[in-house]
Amino acid sequence: MDRSIERALGVQRVLEPAGVLPQAAIRLDADPSVGPDEVRIAVERLNLDAASFRQLSEACGGDGDAVRAAVLEIIEARGKMQNPVTGSGGMLIGVVDAVGPESPLGLVPGQRVATLVSLSLTPLRITDGLARWNGRSEQVPATGSAILFGRSIAAVLPDDLPDMVSLALLDVCGAPAATARVVERSGARSVTVLGAAGKSGSLSLAAARAAGATALTGVVRTAAEAAALTAAGLADRVVVADATDPLAVAAAVGQPGDVTVVCVDAQGAEHGAVLATAEGGTVVFFSMATSFSAAALGAEGMAADVTMLIGNGYTPGHAAMALELYRRNQGVRALIDPRVRPTGPHDPRVHA
Amino acid sequence: MDRSIERALGVQRVLEPAGVLPQAAIRLDADPSVGPDEVRIAVERLNLDAASFRQLSEACGGDGDAVRAAVLEIIEARGKMQNPVTGSGGMLIGVVDAVGPESPLGLVPGQRVATLVSLSLTPLRITDGLARWNGRSEQVPATGSAILFGRSIAAVLPDDLPDMVSLALLDVCGAPAATARVVERSGARSVTVLGAAGKSGSLSLAAARAAGATALTGVVRTAAEAAALTAAGLADRVVVADATDPLAVAAAVGQPGDVTVVCVDAQGAEHGAVLATAEGGTVVFFSMATSFSAAALGAEGMAADVTMLIGNGYTPGHAAMALELYRRNQGVRALIDPRVRPTGPHDPRVHA
Repeated sequence: MDRSIERALGVQRVLEPAGVLPQAAIRLDADPSVGPDEVRIAVERLNLDAASFRQLSEACGGDGDAVRAAVLEIIEARGKMQNPVTGSGGMLIGVVDAVGPESPLGLVPGQRVATLVSLSLTPLRITDGLARWNGRSEQVPATGSAILFGRSIAAVLPDDLPDMVSLALLDVCGAPAATARVVERSGARSVTVLGAAGKSGSLSLAAARAAGATALTGVVRTAAEAAALTAAGLADRVVVADATDPLAVAAAVGQPGDVTVVCVDAQGAEHGAVLATAEGGTVVFFSMATSFSAAALGAEGMAADVTMLIGNGYTPGHAAMALELYRRNQGVRALIDPRVRPTGPHDPRVHA
Repeated sequence: MDRSIERALGVQRVLEPAGVLPQAAIRLDADPSVGPDEVRIAVERLNLDAASFRQLSEACGGDGDAVRAAVLEIIEARGKMQNPVTGSGGMLIGVVDAVGPESPLGLVPGQRVATLVSLSLTPLRITDGLARWNGRSEQVPATGSAILFGRSIAAVLPDDLPDMVSLALLDVCGAPAATARVVERSGARSVTVLGAAGKSGSLSLAAARAAGATALTGVVRTAAEAAALTAAGLADRVVVADATDPLAVAAAVGQPGDVTVVCVDAQGAEHGAVLATAEGGTVVFFSMATSFSAAALGAEGMAADVTMLIGNGYTPGHAAMALELYRRNQGVRALIDPRVRPTGPHDPRVHA
């Protein structure tokens, strides 16, 4: 493999162990000096992966100060924000600060961007001790620097949407894009989404509809979520079940569907998803809490002839698709807006 | 969900926690009394999952007595052989001992069978303390009882093959069946197999060829494996690389292929597999050492537009296909036979 590809993947930033890619590294070099094909971002805000934030909160007993200390310690020790338990990271927004002369990303200093590669492989240095964060939300106001590689992806933040909305959409934009692709390629008509009232869930429902699905079932956890999803009109049928209780999911869904999309961030949703899927159907796992062995052995153990996909966070065009689904779809907006504090790019709360 | 389906999935055997399926259970009831749709097997031999055996061996520093004690402790504590670290189990062979009046499996007392559902969900009781096992091989001579559910799968052992060969083939029969299906459905021509000289790897190469692939690359770890695979004639090209070194894999494979099948049982093969796969291609993960987050976030981090499949151990017809590939293909036999001690059903070594 030639050296320029290694550099594009960020191998020069790996301190330990040698030979792995940044995502698998224990420790990265977060030095803010940019290499010839690198880009530096002045960080404004981190958006922690939901599964990661949940794990940290639970481990710290909900103590926000302890969560903040734990996140700082991870970033300092690893040179990146990768939760050692979940393996996941999140994403960030910031301003392009320096662009190496050979960077292929087409970014220009001063542009406000969101990174679309995981924090779990992004060299990151924090300089404000996360002093503006109370440790109680996935959204982390932060000052510092992050590095993008030649093969990284960043989206310029759109002018027409508040930052927090763009960040929320871009964070999960892999899910609707992959859902649309699976529905289009398989010709699926019935699609079930577990965790349907959340960000990735609501976008996946809208994407499935746009791709031609005609029988959409949304599975949610609570009556309040059911009411919100019903009002949003994104699903043809809304049912309430604990996604981690496979028999409850199967009972609530009834007739299994062609495609099941798993958007819950809790462990243990694999078996319910398999039971909710018809023979010959497909399960798309987007939750970072998914267990490979639970899915593989569970399906085998139930003699379930289903195709199971590891949700790839990257599909060409994914960012634009998520933003468009939000702009065009009032139901998506109705579900996502309450989950973010809508603040414009110049709203003082963003930089407070 | 009606009660008969719950029973068919073995829910009545779950002691802890309530509401999960047997694979996700911490503890199963391994009572040898059979329920109306259950089948009891008199156990002769366990075949531990490769990733599980490797983890236990490493944790015990290669001390066979310690490995045996650890396996016994797991089975006693959990009522099943499920490695708590890898989540995986293995399979077993034995003789049908009791058949409940409502069992749909069509088994008859006295038949010698292999279970095709994972040990990680099979109620298991061991009565000989694994006294005949030295803890140094995945193949565990054992006496005891195991329970199959209504929706379990078991294959009657064929008369024409030694037990150890059948067990070895049936253990990995999901891999060639899924590989064949992916090649057929996608029309893939170039297929790369990581871990190509092993059981699942050699069968997957043969299955890909039979399904129409015309450019097969086998990636192996050592020169000795390369020589064996070359002699077997299953691949058009054999290259040597450490599958856990992504840059080495990419360099060895060169031009990325349409489909990559991961059959290595070591951690860290996700990124090499993604780099070895062309844009728009498919990676099929069969290794139980696969990390969901490493695959999902790694592909995203490399902006790799690849479809990633969780290898489902069940595909209709998988057992018969694996046995047929072995019978018809001298290259497969040449690679698999040295990995098993060929012993006939009545060979004293089996029951020694």
